[in-house]
Amino acid sequence: MSADDAAKVIQPADTVAISGFASAGTPKAVIPALANRIRDARASGADFTINLLTGASVSTETERLLAEVDGIALRMPYQSESTARKRINDGRMDYVDIHLSHVAQQVWEGYYGRVDVAVVEVAGVTEAGELIPSASVGNNKTWLDVAGKVILEVNSWVPEAVEGMHDIYYGTALPPHRKPIQLTRVDDRIGQPTFRVDPAKVVAVVETRGRDSASPLMPPDAVSEAIASHVIEFFDHEVRAGRLPADSLLPLQAGIGNVANAVLGGLDRSSYRNLMCYSEVIQDSMLRLIKDGTVEHASTTALALSEEGIEELTANIDFYRHHITLRPQEISNHPEIVRRLGVIAMNGMLESDIYGNVNSTHVMGTKIMNGIGGSGDFARNGYVSMFLSPSTARDGAISAIVPMTPHVDHTEHDTQVIVTEHGLADLRGLSPRRRAPLIIDKCAHPDFRPLLHDYFARAEAQPGAGQTPHILGEAFGFHQRYLETGSMR
Amino acid sequence: MSADDAAKVIQPADTVAISGFASAGTPKAVIPALANRIRDARASGADFTINLLTGASVSTETERLLAEVDGIALRMPYQSESTARKRINDGRMDYVDIHLSHVAQQVWEGYYGRVDVAVVEVAGVTEAGELIPSASVGNNKTWLDVAGKVILEVNSWVPEAVEGMHDIYYGTALPPHRKPIQLTRVDDRIGQPTFRVDPAKVVAVVETRGRDSASPLMPPDAVSEAIASHVIEFFDHEVRAGRLPADSLLPLQAGIGNVANAVLGGLDRSSYRNLMCYSEVIQDSMLRLIKDGTVEHASTTALALSEEGIEELTANIDFYRHHITLRPQEISNHPEIVRRLGVIAMNGMLESDIYGNVNSTHVMGTKIMNGIGGSGDFARNGYVSMFLSPSTARDGAISAIVPMTPHVDHTEHDTQVIVTEHGLADLRGLSPRRRAPLIIDKCAHPDFRPLLHDYFARAEAQPGAGQTPHILGEAFGFHQRYLETGSMR
Repeated sequence: MSADDAAKVIQPADTVAISGFASAGTPKAVIPALANRIRDARASGADFTINLLTGASVSTETERLLAEVDGIALRMPYQSESTARKRINDGRMDYVDIHLSHVAQQVWEGYYGRVDVAVVEVAGVTEAGELIPSASVGNNKTWLDVAGKVILEVNSWVPEAVEGMHDIYYGTALPPHRKPIQLTRVDDRIGQPTFRVDPAKVVAVVETRGRDSASPLMPPDAVSEAIASHVIEFFDHEVRAGRLPADSLLPLQAGIGNVANAVLGGLDRSSYRNLMCYSEVIQDSMLRLIKDGTVEHASTTALALSEEGIEELTANIDFYRHHITLRPQEISNHPEIVRRLGVIAMNGMLESDIYGNVNSTHVMGTKIMNGIGGSGDFARNGYVSMFLSPSTARDGAISAIVPMTPHVDHTEHDTQVIVTEHGLADLRGLSPRRRAPLIIDKCAHPDFRPLLHDYFARAEAQPGAGQTPHILGEAFGFHQRYLETGSMR
Repeated sequence: MSADDAAKVIQPADTVAISGFASAGTPKAVIPALANRIRDARASGADFTINLLTGASVSTETERLLAEVDGIALRMPYQSESTARKRINDGRMDYVDIHLSHVAQQVWEGYYGRVDVAVVEVAGVTEAGELIPSASVGNNKTWLDVAGKVILEVNSWVPEAVEGMHDIYYGTALPPHRKPIQLTRVDDRIGQPTFRVDPAKVVAVVETRGRDSASPLMPPDAVSEAIASHVIEFFDHEVRAGRLPADSLLPLQAGIGNVANAVLGGLDRSSYRNLMCYSEVIQDSMLRLIKDGTVEHASTTALALSEEGIEELTANIDFYRHHITLRPQEISNHPEIVRRLGVIAMNGMLESDIYGNVNSTHVMGTKIMNGIGGSGDFARNGYVSMFLSPSTARDGAISAIVPMTPHVDHTEHDTQVIVTEHGLADLRGLSPRRRAPLIIDKCAHPDFRPLLHDYFARAEAQPGAGQTPHILGEAFGFHQRYLETGSMR
């Protein structure tokens, strides 16, 4: 069927669940056709919006096309595209920002009503009628199970040899029928390589041939390299203290972006070998680490590669298939598994306060950037939970260490280590009053340290200053200064 | 050995781990003797502090005696006693407030250094040399395993018939050796009824005969009863919508205190029978529910009963033994189990902001009340996560619904339902801007609604107000007014 015809299956007010995680595996044809349909409907005076559910971010183009025509009433659970972001921050699009491990179960539990249509990209269909997943798994297994109608995009650009990289777990259930998930190693396989689908629900099959949009990466800069060095030094320190296994640490998780890419890339310079990674995305650095034996196996729910990374993976798919497993995001991010494996969680942040409360999502406390994604799944349940960030943003105008964050995504209870290019603050076992000077001295940019020390000293000097001293009238002084002058300085 | 002699085992700067959870099972003799020892040492000019690790709160008397002599350098993970609280808020005692499910693993992982001495109350010793637990399990299994020296208090007041109520799981490990915990029902038994201990480590056995301090409860008042009614109405609504099993819901968890007690008590008036409870404490209301068949089985890590409750349990221990299981808190609060069972999480709070960010611990953002306890373990991993509170405190001077909370323990991502005596706000699937009017209209006290609506309206009217509108200069207006005038009005 043509994409235009398939898009006609989708009706106004439908809840539409599509494939795509960190761009990878986003449907290529039906959603652009749907955006055209919505534009035409709107031009003729009709209203046409959908609720859009995904794995995480979908391709920039897809997100933008739907946002530009104001086609989305409700978006869940994650986005990272500028047009959609503006619609959300202008109050024109509802956005529900939840832990990525919660998505599938909350949809099963009925919190988002009926899913009318699923649009899922696959690499192919087996003779038995099962579906070969493409470059991400995300929530596709759930979408295929719960949707009333299914539209498949079969993308011939995805090499057939991808078959076998995926491990689709069919053991989930709603309580009281849930069972232990019997995964105890990063490279365990507990499912099957393909998706099942009820053929009676498949209302359209659309052939496509399009590559995933690449995730461009900057070459590591001095700041990222410095953060990476502090992280590796910390690993060495923990190994010497007997708190991490000497040979291959524990499974690593790193968020998405340049800093995470640099930290993983930095492992090449370390003495660690045969490492395991248990994460939600794989970036370019991972391919190199696998190739040279630094990483033995990486589990993920999506590939987020640059052009070069895509070339490398495609050219050597038979090699990488033995070292990479793609899982549903309810497994890649599952608290049960993350805690059992003892994952070392490394996530980015926008800012931390002087006590370790972390804001990952809201610029100046109000404007959403992307979303919490899987950071909470890993931070809460990891063996050790680290947050990484450059100490400043916007050419030094914004400090990543502030007196109080005007939005909290990760509480002091979940933050154990904070790292910037200036150093690493190990907060384990410390009360808030001990944390503050450490975070300021180790992590804040030197230009901001006097201001932060001054705030903390005056807050602590108040009579009955409390467990977590603050001066409420000044707590957002950094942010208010930025809003008024364009700088926190 | 006498308690005084046993207390001499404990040296200045030791890390001492003791039994006790919600007061139950606190050692009765050695710690008071230690407090005397510390007082004497201090009188003679010597310094003497310990680091104190527990299950959660220990008996008020124990906490107070040690705090009064300034005997604690570092306290972890929970307290609820006024002298200790004052020391903490004055900056004289370090307090680390962490999720109760994290305690055992973080001690195993070495985050708190070596545990020098464990002081554990038991009900008796079997012929095989194993230990019969008393009225709480908490972290006792871990303390006995990791401590260099063990002091046992054998409390003959605890009826011998308690043997068999406990299920001590010995399957935990440090990663990479962790295995799935094979518990799939509230009443499953996966361990053994007794603690193991290496006899070579037992340096003292002290005989005691003392009852646990009671947890006094107020009879349910109109506010608690109204909250309970809203909760039960919600259950009915969820059953009708097909989101909860009609016959016996899903396992219930309720925090400690009068509201939780009233909510559970209110189930007696409902049509639900054969309910399961999976929680960290059992209060009086649970005994009645078990007796009349409303609750089939309750899993907990501690009993927190009033005088009457203690009498009732003791007099009918052979009956209750079949309906109550006491587990280590790393199992009662384990994310893996809470999520698998689909626990309905009901926890108290100090305040919520208009978007569902919840403060459970810090009065006016600075002064610790008790601690996060297990609320995060249940809220993050539950099937549905509810926070309950009277809409006002201090005779109406404090609103439990505020524009922004100056401390966050549970983020918007983890809050699904908020309940006060005025109503219930179901936040599932709603963006922040949709949440605010609902929380204000359903949950805030009518006197505070105009102020809250005014704040939200003006925040939302700002150009580019964002996903979560706020006016930073006014966000703590309620709290600043209270600090200046004694009232948020």
